Parts: sequence; C-alpha cells; structure tokens
Amino acid sequence: MYLILMRHGEAVPQTEDVPNRERRLTKEGKKQVRTTSRMLARFLKDRPLRIFASPFMRTRQTARILSEECFAEGLHLTEELLQGDFRRIENHLMTDGGPLALVGHHPFLQSYLLEAAGAGIQPDLASISVVDYDMAWKQGKLIAYFTPALKKLKKED
Amino acid sequence: MYLILMRHGEAVPQTEDVPNRERRLTKEGKKQVRTTSRMLARFLKDRPLRIFASPFMRTRQTARILSEECFAEGLHLTEELLQGDFRRIENHLMTDGGPLALVGHHPFLQSYLLEAAGAGIQPDLASISVVDYDMAWKQGKLIAYFTPALKKLKKED
Repeated sequence: MYLILMRHGEAVPQTEDVPNRERRLTKEGKKQVRTTSRMLARFLKDRPLRIFASPFMRTRQTARILSEECFAEGLHLTEELLQGDFRRIENHLMTDGGPLALVGHHPFLQSYLLEAAGAGIQPDLASISVVDYDMAWKQGKLIAYFTPALKKLKKED
Repeated sequence: MYLILMRHGEAVPQTEDVPNRERRLTKEGKKQVRTTSRMLARFLKDRPLRIFASPFMRTRQTARILSEECFAEGLHLTEELLQGDFRRIENHLMTDGGPLALVGHHPFLQSYLLEAAGAGIQPDLASISVVDYDMAWKQGKLIAYFTPALKKLKKED
C-alpha cells in the first residue's frame, strides 16, 4: 500500500490567546500546502485517497486543502497522530488498499518515516513523503519526498 | 545553489566479459532514468543544468538521458565521483550558480546526501535528490527526492 505522510504548513505562533491546538495556517502556510498537494495530485491522478489528520487546527486545515486537490475518499480526525509510535498507527489506522494519507506533526512524522521506511529525514513544513509499504513484511521504501521549496527551483538564485 | 544527485539506472550484471566500468543500462534502466529525468525537467523548466558524471558506462548513459530531458549546459566526466568524500566534491566540482547535477553511484551518493543535507536515505536506482545548498555555510536542505516507482502510484495495487 502507499502511505503518504504530510506535515502541516506554516502556522501562526502560539500565544496566550492562541493555544497550540488552535494555531491556524498562515497565508504562506496555506500556499505551501496547496503547492505540495498539487504535486501529489499529479502523480495520484484520480486515484481515491483516504486521509487521516490530527485534530489540531493546522493539520485539519492542511488536510482540507489536500482533500480539495486530490480525489479524497474520506477525511477523518484522530488523536492517534499526536503520538510517535508507528506500530500503533499501523495497527489502528492502516489497512491494505488504496493510498492512505496521514497529516500530522513534527517530530512524530519523522519517527514514522524512520520506522516505516528507514529514511532519516526531518520532514519540512507542508512536505509530503510517499512510502511504498508492505503490511505483511512490515517494511517500506521511500519513493518520493516533496517540499514547497521545489517550486522555486526554476527561478534564478 | 541547487545540487542534484542522481543515481544511474539498472545496469547489466558484471561478468567475466563485462567489466564493472563497462556495464550498460538495461532497457528498464533507461526507462527508469527517462522517468525521473522528466520529473526533474518539469520543475527546472528551461533553466540550464550543469552535469558531472562518473566515467563509468552506466553513469555516462544516465547523464546523457538526463541531458536530453533537461536543458543541459554542459556534460563533463570526472573520476571524482568514484569517491565518497563530499568535501572533495565540493572543493573540486561545485561553484555557485545555476543547478549542478552529479550523476554517480551507490554508496557514494548516500554519503554526499548525508553530509550535504543531513538526509539519511539510500538513493534508489535512477533516483534524483535535490538539495538546496549554501556554499558559504556548507549546509544544505533536501527539498525533493524522486524515484521511478513514483510513476506507478496512480495505478491500482
């Protein structure tokens, strides 16, 4: 199965008035998320995508944009994504079938990537990692990683 | 500057008749390289790309396909890419300016990626990694990683 790990985009800072759970995406953060969601959509085409997101505001907003750009089959919220235990994620959220996207936070995504695919990268804001994961063998391979910065590649330094 | 690290595609096995330096890409290997080169070309658009390749047959063939798909400004061969020392690569091959592609081998590319961007991934055959690298600070960030497997994403499992 394909496991897609997405980190939320840039969010407003936490303040006394804005608790961490309620931090919203900035305008730039929404743009970042739109950019990488579109990159993924190019590869998924019209293949249905199941989406789970952490219940925090910034991940919900990220997942909503992802669902607008891809052909979302469902969007569910789960507290499970507020933990770093990949085996728990695997047992509770993952089932074989079409691609599954998990929209979450640093550093949990970093730990899933390491455990699911042996990939040691720190996922950037709004980045998308694609893992080809074999549930029977409990083993996966990173097949792609995109960040919003990729869009600037064609511009001059 | 943008540093692009590309691994050669699948090559024929080494035999008594075929020394390692002369191993050619298989038909599948050429297809893999074409696939990822086109993915990169979409992001580079018509931005000129400088290319260095190791002098082995499989990397020369890979670099030629890359140069066909992107707007290659030059294609040079160098023995430097047969070593894993990134600082040497940096001092001898890299200069600020437009994107620079290095077409090389496992495990050297893995060690460049780790040193240039702190990214712990084992680059797949024909994969392309894009690093946004600051030569003054000797520090970079992985902004993308593509493999040929990404193309299969839209197909059913």
